[in-house]
Amino acid sequence: MEIQKPYLLFLADAHDRLAAKVATGIRYWHPEYCVGQLRMAGCQVDCELPDLDIDAAAAKGAKTLVVGVANRGGVISESWVALLQQALERGMDLAAGLHNRLSDVPVLKETARRLGRSLFDVRHTSAVLPVGSGRKRSGKRLLPVGTDCSCGKMYTALAIEKALLARGQKATFRATGQTGILVSGAGISIDAVVADFIAGAVEVLAPDNEPDHWDVIEGQGSLFHPSFAGVTTGLIHGAQPDALVLCHEPTRTTMRGVDYPLPDLADCMALNLKIAQLTNPLARFVGISINSAHLSEPKALEYMADLERQFGLPVADPFRQGVDRIIDNL
Amino acid sequence: MEIQKPYLLFLADAHDRLAAKVATGIRYWHPEYCVGQLRMAGCQVDCELPDLDIDAAAAKGAKTLVVGVANRGGVISESWVALLQQALERGMDLAAGLHNRLSDVPVLKETARRLGRSLFDVRHTSAVLPVGSGRKRSGKRLLPVGTDCSCGKMYTALAIEKALLARGQKATFRATGQTGILVSGAGISIDAVVADFIAGAVEVLAPDNEPDHWDVIEGQGSLFHPSFAGVTTGLIHGAQPDALVLCHEPTRTTMRGVDYPLPDLADCMALNLKIAQLTNPLARFVGISINSAHLSEPKALEYMADLERQFGLPVADPFRQGVDRIIDNL
Repeated sequence: MEIQKPYLLFLADAHDRLAAKVATGIRYWHPEYCVGQLRMAGCQVDCELPDLDIDAAAAKGAKTLVVGVANRGGVISESWVALLQQALERGMDLAAGLHNRLSDVPVLKETARRLGRSLFDVRHTSAVLPVGSGRKRSGKRLLPVGTDCSCGKMYTALAIEKALLARGQKATFRATGQTGILVSGAGISIDAVVADFIAGAVEVLAPDNEPDHWDVIEGQGSLFHPSFAGVTTGLIHGAQPDALVLCHEPTRTTMRGVDYPLPDLADCMALNLKIAQLTNPLARFVGISINSAHLSEPKALEYMADLERQFGLPVADPFRQGVDRIIDNL
Repeated sequence: MEIQKPYLLFLADAHDRLAAKVATGIRYWHPEYCVGQLRMAGCQVDCELPDLDIDAAAAKGAKTLVVGVANRGGVISESWVALLQQALERGMDLAAGLHNRLSDVPVLKETARRLGRSLFDVRHTSAVLPVGSGRKRSGKRLLPVGTDCSCGKMYTALAIEKALLARGQKATFRATGQTGILVSGAGISIDAVVADFIAGAVEVLAPDNEPDHWDVIEGQGSLFHPSFAGVTTGLIHGAQPDALVLCHEPTRTTMRGVDYPLPDLADCMALNLKIAQLTNPLARFVGISINSAHLSEPKALEYMADLERQFGLPVADPFRQGVDRIIDNL
């Protein structure tokens, strides 16, 4: 799916930045995609974009209204529907990554059908996907892998894409989850595909490319997470990564949502490498990305220096230091 | 899903035993489930069951007509529909494991709805599944794992269930694919669930049980198959196997459907053990099951004796020798 830009970011009545993380992610990574924000009464988030109503956004050329918030339960609130319908009538498509679908709201489905607009429910794919072939593709690929879920893999991938592009290199972020899809405007939510097609979906997502082009593929889950390691395995096999980056949040004591310890970093790297080398025997780790938000600056720097000595790889927190030292190692 | 027994096996116009492998599998493993077979003109397969038409099968108490054949493309032939409809009208449910669904044939869907019958499209699940929890469950579990797809994992699991039951032990075969579901009458086709729920589906399929009960779970794919390893990983994590059996077909030179070599057996066992020990640290291999159909008896015995010396584990071809020596090692 390819979502038309530019976007009007719909912040609804979001009470905090976490509730608006899709909108803040798009604003942070791709301000050039955004013509403005639409806030309802009570909204307490500001993406520092012009406040536009539907008419003003349409006049400024907005092609898609993106639902940039997730409320409790991930549902489409009834109080939003009139505004969403108005956006369709003013010529915009709609995009959302919520659990329930835009296309399950009858008035939105009917209005979109009547006017020929698209509803992008990016958590769900209707694409017919192939089974993975394992055939080696041209071009280069980088994949962040994690000790856990939600430890910085998307942030790392977006930072690496941005840094490569800033150096004039060819690079494309390939989104594999709903937030990444809305941030970048394209992708496949691979945890929502049928199990037989995980690797095949990633093969489609990151196809043959120029020899010096880097696909920077969004990572998902962890090989050590008992709920989601199947998704991670298929993702690694489909990605055929030349370069792996280990992502880790060093203050976490158990894995997200389950009572399992975090893996040892060396053990985690060894298993990821073993799995990756099935479809790309040249796969190797090029760096370690640390989410050190919960450490003080001195503690974070000391921790990363220790890891760097231990593994002989560049170690960086993309938010504190950028990823230049990691991509120097590509 | 739980399919009502006994069955009428529908062989349609199958030209050879491979086309009728679902029917021959049910007949071989569970003759007590079968009241008879229904063959159309031109059918060249005989399951050595009474030939019954729909009326006669209904009179003998058949509860479900099972489509026991797969034609090219896995479709429901138009020439079958009148017979399938008649079975519904005589009180039977329908079950099939084809790509396209019984419920997508309007007249079957409408007839079933009108009469309150069930249509079991066992390749597809409508169950609402949880994400895997990784919580250790009570009871014992055995899982065959393979060097490749289609190398004897279902046969091995069914043979082990049968041998355990013959010894008076508590055991249940848990089907994870369409043939296994139709052979045993229950299960979840895990390659058809949404990727996020692979491990969770297996947790539901093989729930808490008595301490001395063995769930014998049907294996799927291979950790070394670039198309399907994600499914295999989630299956292993959800199964939490206490006992693993390696399944191997020694004459194969590339993996099914892809140009990849078969893995080294020691390497394959090491990776399966590594993955299994995430959710069950006590997982271990208890034997090796060889599909030696393409070797002469002397060559097969020599090959298996070599493996037994190399790995120090019981090695057997379940078809030639049974699985007693493997289950002696549980």
